Formats: sequence, C-alpha cells, structure tokens
Amino acid sequence: MVESEGREGEDRAHTGRRPGRTRTRAQILESARQRFADLGYEQTTIRAVAEQAGVDPALVMHYFGSKEGLFQAAIDWPFDMDAAAAKIFEGDPDTVGERLVRQVCRVWEDEAMRHPLAAIVRNSLEREDVARLMSEFVAKEMVGRVVRRTGDPDSALRGALIHSALMGLAVSRYMVKIEPLASAPIEDVVREAGPVIQHYLSGAV
Amino acid sequence: MVESEGREGEDRAHTGRRPGRTRTRAQILESARQRFADLGYEQTTIRAVAEQAGVDPALVMHYFGSKEGLFQAAIDWPFDMDAAAAKIFEGDPDTVGERLVRQVCRVWEDEAMRHPLAAIVRNSLEREDVARLMSEFVAKEMVGRVVRRTGDPDSALRGALIHSALMGLAVSRYMVKIEPLASAPIEDVVREAGPVIQHYLSGAV
Repeated sequence: MVESEGREGEDRAHTGRRPGRTRTRAQILESARQRFADLGYEQTTIRAVAEQAGVDPALVMHYFGSKEGLFQAAIDWPFDMDAAAAKIFEGDPDTVGERLVRQVCRVWEDEAMRHPLAAIVRNSLEREDVARLMSEFVAKEMVGRVVRRTGDPDSALRGALIHSALMGLAVSRYMVKIEPLASAPIEDVVREAGPVIQHYLSGAV
Repeated sequence: MVESEGREGEDRAHTGRRPGRTRTRAQILESARQRFADLGYEQTTIRAVAEQAGVDPALVMHYFGSKEGLFQAAIDWPFDMDAAAAKIFEGDPDTVGERLVRQVCRVWEDEAMRHPLAAIVRNSLEREDVARLMSEFVAKEMVGRVVRRTGDPDSALRGALIHSALMGLAVSRYMVKIEPLASAPIEDVVREAGPVIQHYLSGAV
C-alpha cells in the first residue's frame, strides 16, 4: 500500500514522528531515485534500493509496500493508484470508462495533485531519461492493470491507447486549456469521453 | 495557403531568391510573433501585423495566404494543415477517424516534422503565454474544422476531445514512447484508434 504521505519528510510537519524514521525514509527515497534513474523501472529491485540505503529490504516494504509504491513516492506521485484503481475497476464493468475519466478530472482539478502531475508530464517530455522511466512504469503498472483485468494480452495496445487518451485529456483540459474542453463541466466530459474509453476496454470497437 | 518553406529565411539556403524578399518575409514573421504573443490568436489581424512590419496587408496575404498560414509560419508549424485537412475530410466520411490517426502518425514519423511539433508541445506545456496562444489557435482552426464539417455547434466539445486524443497519441507514442504503442505498426494503431476518433466525429457513441 502506498502511504498517504508520499513526499519526503522535509516537505511536511511530522509531529510525533521520530526524526530517525524521517531520515531513514528520505535515505531510502534518495537511493530509489538513483537506482530508478540508473536502471529504469523494470530492472530496479527493492533489494538493491535497500542495499544502497544501508537498510533491510523489509523496512523498504514496511514504508512503501511495493516497488510501485516506492516509485510513486520517489517521483512525488500525488495519490494512491492502488486504491483509485480498485474503486474504478470494482464497480459496474460497463462504466469503467466513465469512472476512469471522472477520476482523471477529479485528480487534476485538485491543485495539490495537479501541480506534481503537471511537473511529471513536463519532465517526461523534456528529459529522455525521465521519459524512459515513466514509459516503463506506465507500461508495467497502468497498461498492466488493464491487461490483468481483461486477461487478454492483445489488450496491451488498447491499454496504452487508454493511457494516451487520458493523458491527452488531462494535458488539453488542465495544461494547454483547449476550449470548450477546458471549461466543460466534468459530467459533460465523462458523458462524451467515458464511452470512448469503454470501447478500448471492452475491445468492442 | 501555407508556403512549403515555413521557416525563416536564415534557416535555409534560398538560392535564386532576392534578399529583399527574404528580409521582408522575416520582418513580417517577426511582427506576427510579437502581435500573436501580445494579443493572442483571435485578436491579431493581418492588418495590424502588416502595419507593424511596415508593409501592405496584401503582401502578407501574398506570402502567407491567411491568418492561419501566417500563424503556422510564425510558430514553425511543419506542414500544410489546409491540404492535410482537405485530404482527410474529403474521402469516405465513415473512415475520417482512421485517416486522422494515420496522418498524425505519418507526420510524427517524419523527423523533419517531429522535432518542430515536439518543440511546440513542450513550449505549450512550459509557458502559459504559448499555451494560451495554442489553445486559441486549436479551438478556432482545428476544433473549428470539425464543427464546420459536422454543422453541429454541440460538436465543439467532441472536436476538442478529438484534438486531445490525437495529441495524447502523438505524445505517448513519439515523445514518452509508451509500449506497446510506441513500436506498434501504424496500421495497428489506425485499426484500434481510428474507430474511436470516428465515434467522436459521428457523435454515435
């Protein structure tokens, strides 16, 4: 599970926390950033990050729950993707597309989440090493989620297209602010874009 | 009509051209960049650009054909959108979506076009003034084209969503390189994404 405080200890007041814990956590994140940058997402292991930070792998798992959780904390990913995915995929299977679009809009509408997400997008487009890292992460975790749900390996391309459509939506609506998309009510966007995403999911196009 | 040499004279060898013409053209483009930056796309007129460059408006029209052509030359837009749109919209109306996806892929697959387009995307995401300018341009010319074709003003939101999906496709496939989208053959992408774009166009979703 991803901890709700996904940023480094320095960014927030951690009253009641022992400073040792904050330091250790920051040290693990620093090692994780180096390993991910050097090796990419796939090749980086919890064990290697723990070794570099001089801690036990169990402690990394205790703090971050999984490699995905560690990665999200390392790049300041601002929300718990596991929890979001569970909510989206575990409802009516015919309206997963709508819930995906609604979730993307809600997350980007929240300033505290929009700023770190926009920074991740900008970094991915400016720096090839960040692009490669994000590309591996998205392929493995986001596209992977779709493939695991559908049980159809051919759905990987459609999973990547879903990601591309949702990224295009977020960038157009919240960064470049293309009208009338930028000022349309969320539910209008859900109504128009939800079924399109659903088509990719069901492969029924 | 957009001239095929959309860059400033300095960038290329213009053998056989009189230097006066190259200088005047560069002067008009410089004035256009200033006006567009100050006033946005909607508010900028051919007349005001001509005045600032100290030339007759007819000369601006002669070189660039329209405000859209002038804008495209000013931002180094690398292909003739009028010609591309004509080819895309004037075939079988049921496969416009496929032709749009194919055109986006072909344009981005050509290095000479990919680099300036990627620069425009990066600039739009980094600078608010560029974002505003591009957002007005896309709303007026790209979304406008869809609305004019369908004759349905309610299609503006769908037009903006088409733009967002195509931008997401280009960014994911050619900039962040999300797999398996990045290495899929063009026709696989056309087969999967074309009908989705088509749904937005026909409003049949």
